[in-house]
Amino acid sequence: MSRRIRRTPYTDKVEAAGVSGFSVVNHMLLPKAFQKSVAEDYWHLREHVQIWDVSVQRQVEIKGKDASRLVQWMTSRDISKASVGQCLYVPLVDENGGMINDPVLLKLEDNRYWLSIADSDVLLWAKGLALGAGIDVEINEPDVSPLAVQGPKAEDLMAKVFGEEIRKVGFFQYGRFEFKGTSQIIARSGYSKQGGFEIYLDDSTLGHNLWDTIWDSGQEFNISPGCPNLIERIEGGLLSYGNEMTRQNNPLECAMDEYVVLDGSIDFIGLTALRKIQTLGITKQIRAIVFDGKPCPTCSKPWPVMTGENSDLKIGEITSGIYSPRLEKNIGLSMIDRDYWNPGQEVTVLCADDLIREGVVSTLPLGEQRKTSD
Amino acid sequence: MSRRIRRTPYTDKVEAAGVSGFSVVNHMLLPKAFQKSVAEDYWHLREHVQIWDVSVQRQVEIKGKDASRLVQWMTSRDISKASVGQCLYVPLVDENGGMINDPVLLKLEDNRYWLSIADSDVLLWAKGLALGAGIDVEINEPDVSPLAVQGPKAEDLMAKVFGEEIRKVGFFQYGRFEFKGTSQIIARSGYSKQGGFEIYLDDSTLGHNLWDTIWDSGQEFNISPGCPNLIERIEGGLLSYGNEMTRQNNPLECAMDEYVVLDGSIDFIGLTALRKIQTLGITKQIRAIVFDGKPCPTCSKPWPVMTGENSDLKIGEITSGIYSPRLEKNIGLSMIDRDYWNPGQEVTVLCADDLIREGVVSTLPLGEQRKTSD
Repeated sequence: MSRRIRRTPYTDKVEAAGVSGFSVVNHMLLPKAFQKSVAEDYWHLREHVQIWDVSVQRQVEIKGKDASRLVQWMTSRDISKASVGQCLYVPLVDENGGMINDPVLLKLEDNRYWLSIADSDVLLWAKGLALGAGIDVEINEPDVSPLAVQGPKAEDLMAKVFGEEIRKVGFFQYGRFEFKGTSQIIARSGYSKQGGFEIYLDDSTLGHNLWDTIWDSGQEFNISPGCPNLIERIEGGLLSYGNEMTRQNNPLECAMDEYVVLDGSIDFIGLTALRKIQTLGITKQIRAIVFDGKPCPTCSKPWPVMTGENSDLKIGEITSGIYSPRLEKNIGLSMIDRDYWNPGQEVTVLCADDLIREGVVSTLPLGEQRKTSD
Repeated sequence: MSRRIRRTPYTDKVEAAGVSGFSVVNHMLLPKAFQKSVAEDYWHLREHVQIWDVSVQRQVEIKGKDASRLVQWMTSRDISKASVGQCLYVPLVDENGGMINDPVLLKLEDNRYWLSIADSDVLLWAKGLALGAGIDVEINEPDVSPLAVQGPKAEDLMAKVFGEEIRKVGFFQYGRFEFKGTSQIIARSGYSKQGGFEIYLDDSTLGHNLWDTIWDSGQEFNISPGCPNLIERIEGGLLSYGNEMTRQNNPLECAMDEYVVLDGSIDFIGLTALRKIQTLGITKQIRAIVFDGKPCPTCSKPWPVMTGENSDLKIGEITSGIYSPRLEKNIGLSMIDRDYWNPGQEVTVLCADDLIREGVVSTLPLGEQRKTSD
């Protein structure tokens, strides 16, 4: 590791907790696994509570006179009615309607926002737009390092640490809570469907202290160090920027229709392109693939999804895939061509191990889901 | 590994050649080490020839009516006299004069350029600027995957594969050479000071073939798989974006004065800020630190560089450091405060292993260098 791939305020702690590997997101370390297998970790996440170092969710702060104007220009979702204290999932699109990122937007003040980003340099995109168009804003990456507490016991743990008031924070809402004499933003959100919170720690010198506090208080709840779980993420239909979607995909293909306003009530980059795409109809859309055979290997290259009498027609590519011990099937995410995207469509999947596996197209999410959102 | 962290056209070959680890640059895999130690690899690179998968040097293609205007706006270097066939090292700066990236610019046609980038999403920066300012260009990432051939025997090997004409290609010039019926850009350049070439393969399906061709022809030259070598890079004074410099540094601090034109003959983003910085004088600049003691550990967190009677005054931070078996000293790169940046200044370095090491400030490059440039 070099300095270029940045450590987080929690990296010392995740190392002490036995991290066995890292990934890199936004030029920063993301823990990838601890001692548990992905399957063990999956069951634990569904039953108990986990602490995740998700500092890689960097904040792009946009503030100043024209901040709302710039943010609205960047996203296909209407942000005009957003209130302070609200989090919004916002597709960012380019002039072709292609996905630039899919951050969570936090409205901090009337003209001050954080974009909590996936893996692309949104800061450079926003700065370029502002500088080019002469938009009066300041754009920075503040010293904010999210720590996620996820799982069904997260609320009890968070109430123990931050007080009962935290139970009142609604899904995709945030509040300010006291920690060691500082005021920290805590949202009910996270990259799982098991419920939980994200603490937007805005002072990295408190990182060790925050980790230890959650960890120690979490012992009675069987807390474990963790990270986004691939089985749980695929079952829940949580897409990953760079995996399921890139600039070559638009938000309609990503089934984000409810966050794409094309009636002209808002103006944003990509409006014209997306209207045209909508008129012509999208040619593919994200789906789950549920497929048989022995547990599939790691999906580091996309796996072709085939159909037709001789399985010689390619209709998609699985970009994230793994075996689900709950469904006792392999599961994956793939854009699927329009003529074949109906649930029940029979397919074959060509995994990297050259075994041919039979499967079907399915809607998302997969299996019974906990209700964690309004 | 997931699809988000992209494989390259050579990754299969690199794995077959025994790669023992990867880093991530521009959302893509960069080999980090093979069987040899960094020191063994260093000596080999200085004496023989190596093949490096540097596909992570992604190309940002800027073409169209206003391409020259946009590229000039992005860099502090005068590109007006650049000719087709030329490569230019160009600092990209923001409105504060901060470094966005330090790519090599290839002029392909009068209004068509490639920026061969270090680790930040220059494509988003360029697209944002163009869209914001209404600049008439097309910006894309083409399917181009550089393969470097580095070391003193590189020219003989390349002449064997591509013909004697390649010997005439000057430093930071490129030519077009035939490979399997295609025309490929090959430049005399690379991220080492040992001489060599970079093949800008513009068809990933030829990746395996190109690797094998170089590899097979290289046997008589004692070719080895390799990657940028930290010892060689530090000795040569080759900076790394994200390590030695970030948006918090300007090109004058990076000693790139010859690529910063402030006389008003060109206009670019950051001109006003850099003029002000020049007038006030920079407060720190990049230097080498040569220091004693046992071989230093890996520099994953910056190491404080201290001076003063009680070594209690911090004057810099080493951002890349390693032991040099040739100089038989530890070496590192650090921005050093103005009052202490003269060669010979005595310092102490606080490495991560808590040992205190005595050292001195030095100019770059370190040790005797081969002449590889004009």
